Amino acid sequence: MASPPSILSLLLLLLLLNFVITAATISTTNLPSAMARPYPRKHVVRAEGNPRCESWKFAVEVNAAGSWKSVPRPCIAFVRDYFNGDRYLSDSRTVVNYSLTFANSVNMAGKENGRNAWVFDVDETLLSNLPYYRVNGYGSEAYNNTAFNEWVNKGLAPPLPMSLRLYKKLKHLGFKIFLLTGRGESQRNVTQRNLLEAGYFGWDNLIFRGPADEGKKAAVYKSEKRAELVKEGYVIQGSLGDQWSDLIGFALPNRSFKLPNPMYYIP
Amino acid sequence: MASPPSILSLLLLLLLLNFVITAATISTTNLPSAMARPYPRKHVVRAEGNPRCESWKFAVEVNAAGSWKSVPRPCIAFVRDYFNGDRYLSDSRTVVNYSLTFANSVNMAGKENGRNAWVFDVDETLLSNLPYYRVNGYGSEAYNNTAFNEWVNKGLAPPLPMSLRLYKKLKHLGFKIFLLTGRGESQRNVTQRNLLEAGYFGWDNLIFRGPADEGKKAAVYKSEKRAELVKEGYVIQGSLGDQWSDLIGFALPNRSFKLPNPMYYIP
Repeated sequence: MASPPSILSLLLLLLLLNFVITAATISTTNLPSAMARPYPRKHVVRAEGNPRCESWKFAVEVNAAGSWKSVPRPCIAFVRDYFNGDRYLSDSRTVVNYSLTFANSVNMAGKENGRNAWVFDVDETLLSNLPYYRVNGYGSEAYNNTAFNEWVNKGLAPPLPMSLRLYKKLKHLGFKIFLLTGRGESQRNVTQRNLLEAGYFGWDNLIFRGPADEGKKAAVYKSEKRAELVKEGYVIQGSLGDQWSDLIGFALPNRSFKLPNPMYYIP
Repeated sequence: MASPPSILSLLLLLLLLNFVITAATISTTNLPSAMARPYPRKHVVRAEGNPRCESWKFAVEVNAAGSWKSVPRPCIAFVRDYFNGDRYLSDSRTVVNYSLTFANSVNMAGKENGRNAWVFDVDETLLSNLPYYRVNGYGSEAYNNTAFNEWVNKGLAPPLPMSLRLYKKLKHLGFKIFLLTGRGESQRNVTQRNLLEAGYFGWDNLIFRGPADEGKKAAVYKSEKRAELVKEGYVIQGSLGDQWSDLIGFALPNRSFKLPNPMYYIP
């Protein structure tokens, strides 16, 4: 049996070790940057979380990253946590709240009465493909057309709750609703059924890529389809989408609202 | 003097207390969200930091917030920490790295030899007004034209280090450099001196708002000036700016790169 003094020594050592580890953790998290920089910083605040992946996400969301094929390996866990945590829903909620503020400001009784329109994208906008991406590496693997279409054809994609809320309120306000998807005509039936089961009712048109749209960049295809709506007399007040190809091009809405998507990029 | 057993008890208590605190910290950070949501989350990860202000920043950066006059009160400390911490520089570095990747891909010896151009914004792009905003509430106060012009006329704005790096590399690659600022002609001399002292040399033109541009929205003024460059034969390959008015409109560059700015919005 050990005598009391030796237990005492062991405990003292444990306690000391604990303090040393705590002190080391604190000192590295508050360590000032080693490099002197001309940019004026008064007090240095270390970024929480994962600053490199935060910056990658920032670049992706403002389209600075351009076309990319997969989530960088060091950011896979970051993307997984982003989608499974509160942030994805919080970012989406904020964007939807701004969309609603704008929608409420549109004069629905004015001369454009009955012609005010809103355009929605489908994937990662009205419907979430997270169940698919969860078992396929959260965008860390290059797009697999066969596997993704198998998932789409199941028609099991759940709604994104913030988008469903916006959809219902816009319907209530009297907007004409157009769904403009990059999915092909062959997926019309399963997409309609999936949308209805997810809670989306009463859209004015659901537009798919037809044979004439094959090979077109998403931004061109979507711009052309919006231009047709404008030609038919609709006034596209707003749109909601997760890709930059929903935001750029021509026949643009008065206001475009971008949902987050650091999982994949559609050129 | 205390006997060894009582020191032992005290140490045991201290050690126990330490473990209890650690365990409590871990359990609150991993607390699952109370609300059940249809959106499928496998394991809930609580957002670190300030999720509401993160989402506000996201909305601002993707232009979902539209025109805004001041940073929301609950996010002032968030914005202060963003600019004083590593995140602003990290986000800027990532955007500049993508800019450089693109710039390096431009064929400088091709038929556009000598006509490849890059457009830079000035405020919060080449120069930082953080010393001004630091003593004026980090964007929490509405824009004060008199006070801001007093600061500009001092000519003391430091360079943003990532932008200076990009500027020098683009010069080295042979790009024609155009600086396109919302500042007025009356600030030409002080702006030139400030830019030179900050380390920017050898631009091809520095374009200010003239009397004919007064009252124009920033995006219109900047589009018109870019269109003049295109008319003169330049091929605007890229641009760097912190505002959406640098990104939208017409005569757009092949690629536009947005720096972060959750401090102010220029309509």
